[in-house]
Amino acid sequence: MPFEITILGSNSALPTSDRNPTAQVVNLLGRFFLLDCGEGTQIQLRRNKIGFSKIKHILISHLHGDHYYGLIGLISTMNLLGIKTDLHIYAPSEIKSLIQPQLDFIKGEMTVNPIFHPLDFKKPRQIFADKKIEVISFPVKHSISTCGFLIRELPREANIRRDMVEAYKIPVAKIKEIKSGADFITPEGEVVPNKQLTWPPYKPRSYAFCTDTAFHPPIAETVQNVDILYHETTFLEDTREFATKTWHSTTTDAAAMAKLTNARKLLIGHFSARYHNLIPFEKETRAVFPNTEIAREGKTFTILSERGNRE
Amino acid sequence: MPFEITILGSNSALPTSDRNPTAQVVNLLGRFFLLDCGEGTQIQLRRNKIGFSKIKHILISHLHGDHYYGLIGLISTMNLLGIKTDLHIYAPSEIKSLIQPQLDFIKGEMTVNPIFHPLDFKKPRQIFADKKIEVISFPVKHSISTCGFLIRELPREANIRRDMVEAYKIPVAKIKEIKSGADFITPEGEVVPNKQLTWPPYKPRSYAFCTDTAFHPPIAETVQNVDILYHETTFLEDTREFATKTWHSTTTDAAAMAKLTNARKLLIGHFSARYHNLIPFEKETRAVFPNTEIAREGKTFTILSERGNRE
Repeated sequence: MPFEITILGSNSALPTSDRNPTAQVVNLLGRFFLLDCGEGTQIQLRRNKIGFSKIKHILISHLHGDHYYGLIGLISTMNLLGIKTDLHIYAPSEIKSLIQPQLDFIKGEMTVNPIFHPLDFKKPRQIFADKKIEVISFPVKHSISTCGFLIRELPREANIRRDMVEAYKIPVAKIKEIKSGADFITPEGEVVPNKQLTWPPYKPRSYAFCTDTAFHPPIAETVQNVDILYHETTFLEDTREFATKTWHSTTTDAAAMAKLTNARKLLIGHFSARYHNLIPFEKETRAVFPNTEIAREGKTFTILSERGNRE
Repeated sequence: MPFEITILGSNSALPTSDRNPTAQVVNLLGRFFLLDCGEGTQIQLRRNKIGFSKIKHILISHLHGDHYYGLIGLISTMNLLGIKTDLHIYAPSEIKSLIQPQLDFIKGEMTVNPIFHPLDFKKPRQIFADKKIEVISFPVKHSISTCGFLIRELPREANIRRDMVEAYKIPVAKIKEIKSGADFITPEGEVVPNKQLTWPPYKPRSYAFCTDTAFHPPIAETVQNVDILYHETTFLEDTREFATKTWHSTTTDAAAMAKLTNARKLLIGHFSARYHNLIPFEKETRAVFPNTEIAREGKTFTILSERGNRE
């Protein structure tokens, strides 16, 4: 039951020699989501041994180049590899007109079929769902239209205890209602409480990705109780004036948002190229929100399954 | 008097975890030319400490993505850095329609002014010249229209010997004609031969860049006696059938072209992603043309100045 976030790029707009522009891969129950696709993402996928054919969903937060210039190269390579797939691209509507000329110029048959899904910048919206998980986009606050993304498991039913099914000879027809919370009444009239018949379900896990945003309290309404919150910290606190000017966040902003959302863990990234040493980011953020980690290239963060509903 | 070629990327279309798509920087007498601009070129420029503001001329051989997908990111970054410059882009004419939508989408004032110069795929053509150097484009033989580039110094005049000027009291008015080859006749009627009055000029140096081409003998007419020939070797000899199918070259093709052009040194690159070990490329090519080197990322090759015209 994997829930893994792999960091491919942690830097802001200007590249450095050792940090890449934004990209992350989320693997939730074998469904792979690529979050943003800065230049060089395909090489980072190779370096992290993530097969290109696994990527079926690409989520682009906004159309600053450091978040989407790697998209055409990735699609082109998937095509050269002969990967036959629908490729769902959730992004600002303008993206199609920006990369379609380059897609049209690729000679020969396209094996990849890009399907564009425009984002809504007015309110949170479910953009993907299947039986087990869902993805929500929600507006954040940047110099151009930008969305964050919440990726989470759907609530699960309780697991029925096989030993109890045997002990009480529970008929198959009753199992569905017990999973939904019903007690069981034996032919003799004994009431066996539901708690005794089931293991509590696994808690639904969740990950939120908020890049390129100023401190924006409405985010917290959408991503309450998230297991891991990724929040940008382009600047340290002593250069808050740059953050304000460019609609970005500081360490303290990210920490405050982690508190406001009641996050378990905070990941910080999107560092300005002016910083070579990232330790001060860790220090400043941990002073307010101790369970903070730096989203470094090549690191994978795992959210483990636990039984019992999270309060 | 620098003439340096720095390799930023040596790989063919599919990226590997340790090799980048094609890009090279040529510094000839302080004029910087970027040859091709695959994805990730801007990060490679950073890694090799080549300032973005030095790049005024970008030459794009053809419009397969691994040769131009890094262009938009580089221009965007130059713009973010506030570099004010004309940026001359010599490329197939279609490039403008491919990247103009993305250029138009960059908000705010563009400090970089891209000027597009369409390439000629019918015959060799001078695409740049100043007092000291020139750049020639010439068609090669690939699956789509592709050019190679020849970058060279213009022939120089002989250097006059200051000791002779003093010894014979040569008037300033005579110096120009002596530089052009004239003897000097003293007031007493003695003829001092030109050879005695001058040092031979530095030999004009030259570099040719031939990527993405099958073996194509007409190339040799344009790049005769080149100091360094870069010629692609996408495949080893035992996979010649792939080279033929995809309009690429093998080791033996590159070596044969080095002989045909009477090159001093051969650089090989554009290796297929199927090869992890490049030593067999070196071995196979050197068996035919011993002075061969592999164009590895981060390597700089220098062409030194020598006096005397090269035969």
